[in-house]
Amino acid sequence: MNYCSQCGETVTVKVPAGDYVLRHVCDACGIIHYQNPKIVVGCIPEWEDRILLCKRAIEPRYGLWTLPAGFMENGETVQQGAARETLEEANARVQVGALYALFNLPHINQVYMLFRSRLLDLDFGPGAESLETELLDQSQIPWDKIAFPVIHESLSLYFQDRANGDFPLRTGDIQRLAGPGRRYEVCMRDTAEPTS
Amino acid sequence: MNYCSQCGETVTVKVPAGDYVLRHVCDACGIIHYQNPKIVVGCIPEWEDRILLCKRAIEPRYGLWTLPAGFMENGETVQQGAARETLEEANARVQVGALYALFNLPHINQVYMLFRSRLLDLDFGPGAESLETELLDQSQIPWDKIAFPVIHESLSLYFQDRANGDFPLRTGDIQRLAGPGRRYEVCMRDTAEPTS
Repeated sequence: MNYCSQCGETVTVKVPAGDYVLRHVCDACGIIHYQNPKIVVGCIPEWEDRILLCKRAIEPRYGLWTLPAGFMENGETVQQGAARETLEEANARVQVGALYALFNLPHINQVYMLFRSRLLDLDFGPGAESLETELLDQSQIPWDKIAFPVIHESLSLYFQDRANGDFPLRTGDIQRLAGPGRRYEVCMRDTAEPTS
Repeated sequence: MNYCSQCGETVTVKVPAGDYVLRHVCDACGIIHYQNPKIVVGCIPEWEDRILLCKRAIEPRYGLWTLPAGFMENGETVQQGAARETLEEANARVQVGALYALFNLPHINQVYMLFRSRLLDLDFGPGAESLETELLDQSQIPWDKIAFPVIHESLSLYFQDRANGDFPLRTGDIQRLAGPGRRYEVCMRDTAEPTS
């Protein structure tokens, strides 16, 4: 951010009075331009024992597999956003169910929210951002070709929980490790009651 | 938004190619300025059978009571944000527990996430944005002086669930109704499994 979106003058990065975080502050009109994390919403679309995955037709991670998910838009609910992304990426209609995975990705200022969802029919197919869409059972998941660590982790937990017949809300943090290569640390939170 | 924060030229509101939503697009450099919902994170700080509320020292809703909560910042997790807001508004240290309430407020582009939390000690007191902080039991909650519908609804559900000894994740939408006055519609979601 170089210029004030309100008045067009230059901005300076500084800590405003009464604050403790560096912000972009307009040199002319004084407005503070806050920047906040974005929500990524998506579905785990279920059909009997299979789930629907999409092969990405866009960067980043072109050609790798993911769940239908994307940035939540203004004016919608998290559930509406998850359904919209599933329609856009897989032309699939779902009934959005319970929140299953809530992941913090603080290194890129994102919060992922993935919902278990019931696929309403089999009339799906790749949207503009997908090369392929496939209903896959557990043995068919391309574990070494999953686009993002948050999706890999969520799918891995999902099949573990399905084997137990119970889907608690899974919450954790995924951090990219410093240094070369794509290396991540996954830290799950204890799901016990806070007072126990 | 009137000017491009990247290059300082004017922006036009239009639907970019391949999109279907009105966006602010720079007339000079062409960059698309996306706007997305913000996350509000907060705690229900518990001490035995009481919870900690704050009396607001700022607008909106000056002088009314609320849970410690505020906008999530870049670089933090939702749980860290909830703990930070509790420290800022009530000088209180908490161990953040399970997500309890997830509310969509699409009319103001906000998603609320409130966590049950264990108050770690009784050394709390009003921060800069609070007039008072009080540990209150159910009979002491000032129901007609709660600052926001989302907090009123969350507290109401909380005490119902506590009576049942079970705290499922509560999810719903709160919409402001058209017309004069502050009137809201609360719509809770069924917490049943998506396939049932």
